[in-house]
Amino acid sequence: MKKVQKHDRISVITNILTNNPNKIFTLTHFCDIFKCAKSTISEDLDIIKDIFRNYEIGTIETISGAAGGVYYNPLMTKEQMQSFTKTLCELINTPDRIIPGGYIYTNDLLYSPNISKNIGIALASLFKHVQFDYVITVETKGIPIALMTAMVLNKPMVVVRNQSKLTDGTVIHMNYITGSNHRIKTMCLSTRAIKKGSKVLFIDDFMKAGGTAKGIIDLMQEFEAELVGVGVLMATKEPREKLVDDFKTLLWLDTVDESNKAVDIYSMQER
Amino acid sequence: MKKVQKHDRISVITNILTNNPNKIFTLTHFCDIFKCAKSTISEDLDIIKDIFRNYEIGTIETISGAAGGVYYNPLMTKEQMQSFTKTLCELINTPDRIIPGGYIYTNDLLYSPNISKNIGIALASLFKHVQFDYVITVETKGIPIALMTAMVLNKPMVVVRNQSKLTDGTVIHMNYITGSNHRIKTMCLSTRAIKKGSKVLFIDDFMKAGGTAKGIIDLMQEFEAELVGVGVLMATKEPREKLVDDFKTLLWLDTVDESNKAVDIYSMQER
Repeated sequence: MKKVQKHDRISVITNILTNNPNKIFTLTHFCDIFKCAKSTISEDLDIIKDIFRNYEIGTIETISGAAGGVYYNPLMTKEQMQSFTKTLCELINTPDRIIPGGYIYTNDLLYSPNISKNIGIALASLFKHVQFDYVITVETKGIPIALMTAMVLNKPMVVVRNQSKLTDGTVIHMNYITGSNHRIKTMCLSTRAIKKGSKVLFIDDFMKAGGTAKGIIDLMQEFEAELVGVGVLMATKEPREKLVDDFKTLLWLDTVDESNKAVDIYSMQER
Repeated sequence: MKKVQKHDRISVITNILTNNPNKIFTLTHFCDIFKCAKSTISEDLDIIKDIFRNYEIGTIETISGAAGGVYYNPLMTKEQMQSFTKTLCELINTPDRIIPGGYIYTNDLLYSPNISKNIGIALASLFKHVQFDYVITVETKGIPIALMTAMVLNKPMVVVRNQSKLTDGTVIHMNYITGSNHRIKTMCLSTRAIKKGSKVLFIDDFMKAGGTAKGIIDLMQEFEAELVGVGVLMATKEPREKLVDDFKTLLWLDTVDESNKAVDIYSMQER
């Protein structure tokens, strides 16, 4: 290989950091790749840091000390968040998404890797100061955005299921009441899924009365774990009183007018 | 903002391409960001292309002509694939993963964004020459790796469910027989999920007899769509005859010895 140029280091370091959000890399890691001194890498990182700040493509954070290193945080600025949630409202507020019964079809959005990744970045941005060990979600529609949130924050994801499977091994099985129509549902989670004393962040696509989030709080007690945050893509304005006190949402859904084929939806900033 | 330096362009273009695998960007897109000439961007892209090739961090591909542009393909080299599948075997082949009944606990691996992303890159690498419109999977455990495969190949994902939900709207509902234990199961998919005449790539975490893959072939006929590939993380060696002729797997599972707590697993190359 020919002599390593500064461009090489800038590009490869940018690629590695971008590909691994919130993962800490030591300077030595990059020294080994380029066979160069720490001071050289340190200079490169200062350059990259400035570039990322100037172009608002996330931030490069440095941790000093022996266990130190550098990582990429792709979080959105307030303006990027506003622009993205506005785009989401526009995508959702189209007449042909309205399903008989006043529901909205969102599968194509949730299952689009591009959109779910950006939802993940937006949700991660809401919880950037929260310390936790796992992103938890309930099957099925919430999984893509929970996975993307977990990817952005570099945490493992845990999926609660509606029924236990052989491959889950020993399972904790809990019945709970849905918040809006008072039906009995079941949550199942492998006893191996969460370590005692953990903190979890619950991510889901939709919240009405908050019964699922309340169920997660109860389930976590069985695991001696604690729910430290709830983030959803979309919450309904009614009922105003939810079963959980504290949650964050990217979008507020007011009414779905089936006859006029209109959805009344706001981004979080507009409330 | 101060004058744009070459480093700025190299780093920002690397970040944008890395963040959007297989998405085509026109040169004009970058000209607009940096307020510079196409020839300048073209030079930068040549430099980045060489760097990516030299450091084996994927390839930068150029499409010439009016509709042309540039995109990032993060696919693994043969050596990277070998090394990654070997690591997966080591991760899976640990005694405490064995579950009564001879099953293997893999939820933590499938639900780890880092691991599922790399599985997605590896699976995408197996189908790089296949033209298709959707990645399709069946809930629940296959979703993370299907989503990551879809993200790498920049395609939408579609999730077939075991029961229909109100938010799916009109649904096609199909019963099928599982391949290994001949139970009746159900596949449900919203009629909106797939456009007529589409080609789909089926991705799942596990294949035994291939009943699910066979079910997807049948279900796709109802959508006038065609299954053009099947990729799984892990396939069992027995039964040797699967219900689908053609599939690709990253890992082969031979035996799970419950009493001796040993798993006999190979990477695809070792078969």
